[in-house]
Amino acid sequence: MCNQSDPERDVIPPQADEGSDNAAPDAGFDAAEAEKQLLFMQQELRALGIPVVIVLEGWNAAGKGTMAGELLEGLDPRGYQVHVPERIQGEDDYPFLRRFWVRMPRQGRVSIFIGSWYHEPCRDLVRHKAARRKAEEVYNRINFMERMLVCDGTLLIKFFIHIKRKEQKRRMLHQEKTKSTRLLVTPEDWEQNERYDEWEEQYNRMIAATNNNGAPWHVLSGADKRACKRQIYQIVMTELEKAIAQRRAGQRPWDTPALPGAGSAPTLPMPHLTDMTTLRELETDYKPELDRLQKQLRKLQYELYSRGVPLVLVFEGWDAAGKGGCIRRLTAALDPRGFQVVPIASPTPEEKEHHHLWRFWRTLPQNGNITIYDRSWYGRVMVERIEGFCTEAQWRRAYDELNLFEHELVSQGMVIRKFWLNISPDEQLRRFVARRDDPQKQWKITDEDWRNRAKWDAYASAVDEMLARTHTPDAPWIVVEADDKRFARLKVLSAVASAMESI
Amino acid sequence: MCNQSDPERDVIPPQADEGSDNAAPDAGFDAAEAEKQLLFMQQELRALGIPVVIVLEGWNAAGKGTMAGELLEGLDPRGYQVHVPERIQGEDDYPFLRRFWVRMPRQGRVSIFIGSWYHEPCRDLVRHKAARRKAEEVYNRINFMERMLVCDGTLLIKFFIHIKRKEQKRRMLHQEKTKSTRLLVTPEDWEQNERYDEWEEQYNRMIAATNNNGAPWHVLSGADKRACKRQIYQIVMTELEKAIAQRRAGQRPWDTPALPGAGSAPTLPMPHLTDMTTLRELETDYKPELDRLQKQLRKLQYELYSRGVPLVLVFEGWDAAGKGGCIRRLTAALDPRGFQVVPIASPTPEEKEHHHLWRFWRTLPQNGNITIYDRSWYGRVMVERIEGFCTEAQWRRAYDELNLFEHELVSQGMVIRKFWLNISPDEQLRRFVARRDDPQKQWKITDEDWRNRAKWDAYASAVDEMLARTHTPDAPWIVVEADDKRFARLKVLSAVASAMESI
Repeated sequence: MCNQSDPERDVIPPQADEGSDNAAPDAGFDAAEAEKQLLFMQQELRALGIPVVIVLEGWNAAGKGTMAGELLEGLDPRGYQVHVPERIQGEDDYPFLRRFWVRMPRQGRVSIFIGSWYHEPCRDLVRHKAARRKAEEVYNRINFMERMLVCDGTLLIKFFIHIKRKEQKRRMLHQEKTKSTRLLVTPEDWEQNERYDEWEEQYNRMIAATNNNGAPWHVLSGADKRACKRQIYQIVMTELEKAIAQRRAGQRPWDTPALPGAGSAPTLPMPHLTDMTTLRELETDYKPELDRLQKQLRKLQYELYSRGVPLVLVFEGWDAAGKGGCIRRLTAALDPRGFQVVPIASPTPEEKEHHHLWRFWRTLPQNGNITIYDRSWYGRVMVERIEGFCTEAQWRRAYDELNLFEHELVSQGMVIRKFWLNISPDEQLRRFVARRDDPQKQWKITDEDWRNRAKWDAYASAVDEMLARTHTPDAPWIVVEADDKRFARLKVLSAVASAMESI
Repeated sequence: MCNQSDPERDVIPPQADEGSDNAAPDAGFDAAEAEKQLLFMQQELRALGIPVVIVLEGWNAAGKGTMAGELLEGLDPRGYQVHVPERIQGEDDYPFLRRFWVRMPRQGRVSIFIGSWYHEPCRDLVRHKAARRKAEEVYNRINFMERMLVCDGTLLIKFFIHIKRKEQKRRMLHQEKTKSTRLLVTPEDWEQNERYDEWEEQYNRMIAATNNNGAPWHVLSGADKRACKRQIYQIVMTELEKAIAQRRAGQRPWDTPALPGAGSAPTLPMPHLTDMTTLRELETDYKPELDRLQKQLRKLQYELYSRGVPLVLVFEGWDAAGKGGCIRRLTAALDPRGFQVVPIASPTPEEKEHHHLWRFWRTLPQNGNITIYDRSWYGRVMVERIEGFCTEAQWRRAYDELNLFEHELVSQGMVIRKFWLNISPDEQLRRFVARRDDPQKQWKITDEDWRNRAKWDAYASAVDEMLARTHTPDAPWIVVEADDKRFARLKVLSAVASAMESI
C-alpha cells in the first residue's frame, strides 16, 4: 500500500484497480471498535500536542468525501477541522500555498483535507503541456511545505484513492441521475473522465515525486468502500500509534538541524557587522529629499497596484534603531488602502502551537498590496535562538526554511526587501536614556530592552550569521547605517523606491 | 459639524459645500504637534484597553484615503489596522455585516475603515427603487451593530466627507489624466457623479437615520484638504480625550442592561424546566429509525447546498447531557464537505478583547453550509453570568444582543435551530460516576463538571430565563428530553431534518 521503496515504478498498483478486497471478509476488523479506539487515541494526541494532517486525494467520485465521513465517525468533533480546498474562496490574490498553510492544525488537533494542494497543480499539468517543464519545481515546492510541517512535528498521512475509468463514469452517471446529488457533478469532473489516461500519467508522476520519507503516499482502491474504510482506519491507527509512542519516548526524529533536501541557498556576499559603519553623513537636504521620495513612492505604489505585484518589506534592527520612525515616514507616503503594517511580538498561544511561519502566511499582502513587517520571521534565528525559545535544531533548520519561504513567495511574483537598521552600542545607550527621561517617550522603553542590550555580543553574532545565510538574490538584506536617523530614513525610502521600480 | 440635534433636517449642511475653511488660516493648529499628541494618546488608549473605530465615509474622490493617510501619520503603526471594504474578497457567501464584524479592533487598537458598511446599502437604495421600502430595516441593522459595539466600550467616530458634484467630476478627470492613478477611477465612480442628486438624497437619509447617540456623524467638507485634516484631528482628539477621561474615572456610560432602541423581541411560549420531563420512551426501533433519518439528512443536505441556504445548529445542555453523542450521530449523516463543528470553550485572550459575538461571526457557515456549535453564544447568559465573567449589565443586555444577532442572520436567509439537552440531576450523577470509573472515558470529566453540578439551581434559573427570553420564531429552542440517549438522538436528528425541509 505504501510506496516508499521504488519511486520509479508506477505507483498506482495494478491490484488497486481490482477492488481485490471486495470478496474478502472484513476479517478481524470491527468498525465500531475501531472508531472507539480512534476516539481514545485522539485524546492522547491532544495531550501530547501532536498536530495531525490527513490528506484524502484521488480521482473524482473515488469516495474521498465518504472516506472522510467514515474517519470523522471515530473522531471527537471538538478536535478536528475539515477543509475542502476547491470550495475555499478569497484566495485568488494570494500565493497558491497560502490557503493550505493558514489551515494547518494546532498542536493536538486534526485537519482533514478533502482534495489538497495536489489537485490544482495536477490539473494544470494535464491541461497545459507547457507547464510540464516546470513540474519538478511544483513538486519541490510541495515537498518543502510538507517537510517543514513534518520536521516541526506534524504527523502527515496522505491517501490517494484510486478507481478505474469505467467505475468513475458509472458513479458520476449515478450521481447525475439522483436528484439530490445532481449538482455535485461538474464539467471539470467529466473532463477528468475524458482525459483519464493523461490524468493517470500525471497522478503517477506526482505520487512518485512526492512520496517522501515522513510523508509517504498510501494508495488505496476505492472500488470497495468497506475495504477502503478498513484500510484507512488501519493505516491511520498504525501511524498514530507510532507517533504517540515516539513522542512519549521523547523522540522527535524529524527535528533536524537542516531541512531534508534543501541544500544551501545561493547567497550574496555580506560583510561582518564589525566591519560596517553605523554612521553616514547626509549629503542632501533632508526635507526636500524626503518630500521627493515620498511623492515618488506614492506614484510607484499605484503602479504596483495596477500591475498586481505584492511587496513585502521586513524591518529588523537593534532596539531603538529607529524602525518605527522609518516605517512612519514610509507609510506617510503611501495610500493607506494599499498597505498594512504588521507588528511582530512574541507569538500568541495559538501561534505558538503552529509552525513558526504560520502567522506570517496569514499576513502576507494580496496582489498589488504592501505588507510592512515591524520585526519578522527572523525572530527565530535571533531572539528565539538567544533566549532558548526554540530547540537548537529548530533555529539551525530555520535558515533553510526562511530562504525557502522567501523563495516560494518570490517565485510567485512577490517582491521582498529586508532592512537591518544598524546602530552602535553608544548610540543605543544615548537613545535609551533619552527615552527613559522623556515622559512622552517612556512607553517606548522597557526593562526587556535593557536586558537585551546586555546581550549585545550574542545578538551580534546571531545577526552576522543571519545576514550571511539569508542574504539571497531573491530577498536581499539592506543594511542601513542608522546612527543618523535622517540618513537612515532616506536610505530606506530610496531602497523601497528602487525595489518598486524593479518590477 | 456634528449633527446630533435635529435628525429631521438635511444633514449635509450648506456650509460643508463651500469649503468655507479655504480662506481661513489654520489658526492655532500645528499639524506636527497634533500628530505627536495623537501618538501619545494612542498609548493611553492601549493601556486602558479602549477599542477605537474610525469610519471615513463620503463621496468618491472626496479624499477619504488621503484623510486616512493624514490620520495614520499621528498613529503608531503597531496599533492600527486599515480596512477597505470594497477590496475585501471571499465574503460573498456570508451575511453582509460579517466582513465588518470580524474586522473590529481588539481592545486598545484602532481600526480605520475607508468606506464602510454604509456604501453598499446606499448604492442599492440609489439603484433599486424597490429596495427603498426596506431602507429603515437596513439602517436599523446598522444601528444595532454600532450600538452593540458602543455599549461594549468601543469608541466609534464616523466622518462623512462631502464634496460638490462639480468638484467630484474635476477630481476624477484629474485622476484619469494622471498615469499612476488612471486605473483607480471605475465606471461605478462615474455612475455616482451622473446620479449625484439621487445619491445625495440617500446619503442625507442615511445620515439622518444613523446619527446615533454614541455614534454621531461628523459631516465635513472635503473641498479644502488642509481644513478637513484639521477638523478630523480636532474631532478625533476631542473624542479620544473624552473616552480616556471617562475610562480613567471608571465610567462606562453605555454598559447598560438593555440595548438602546432594541425593545423586546417577540418570543414563543416556553414552560419552566421544572415543568418539563427529562425522560421519554422510544416508540420506534432505534437503529432502523437512525438509519432512515441519517439517509434523509444526507439528501436534505445536498438540497441545502444546491439552494445555497446556510444552517446553524446550536447545542446547549447540562454537562454530560449527550451533546457530543448527538453531534456525532448528526455528522455521521452529513457530507463532511458541507459542515463544520465549532466547539466553544472559554474565550482566548484575543477573543476576550473583542465583543462577545465577534468569535461567532468568524465561524458562521457560508451559504449552503452547516455550522454546528457545541456550546455557543449563550455562554454569556449562563456560565459567564453565573461565574461573574461579565458585568451584570453585560449579561442582561445580552438577551437583546442574541435575539438581534439571530434575527440579523435569519433575515439574510440563514436557518437557525437551538437544542437544549435536558437531563435530570440523578441522570447526570449516574453519567459522571460512569465516566469517572471508565479509563476510556475519564478524559470526558473534569473537576469543573463537579463544581458546575453543585450550582445546579443557579444554572436552572439562568436556563429558564434564557429559554423564555430567546425562544423566538426566528430561532426557536428545541428542548430535548435526554435521559434516554437514544430518544434524544432521534429527536435531534428529526428536528434537524424538519428544519432543512422548511427551507
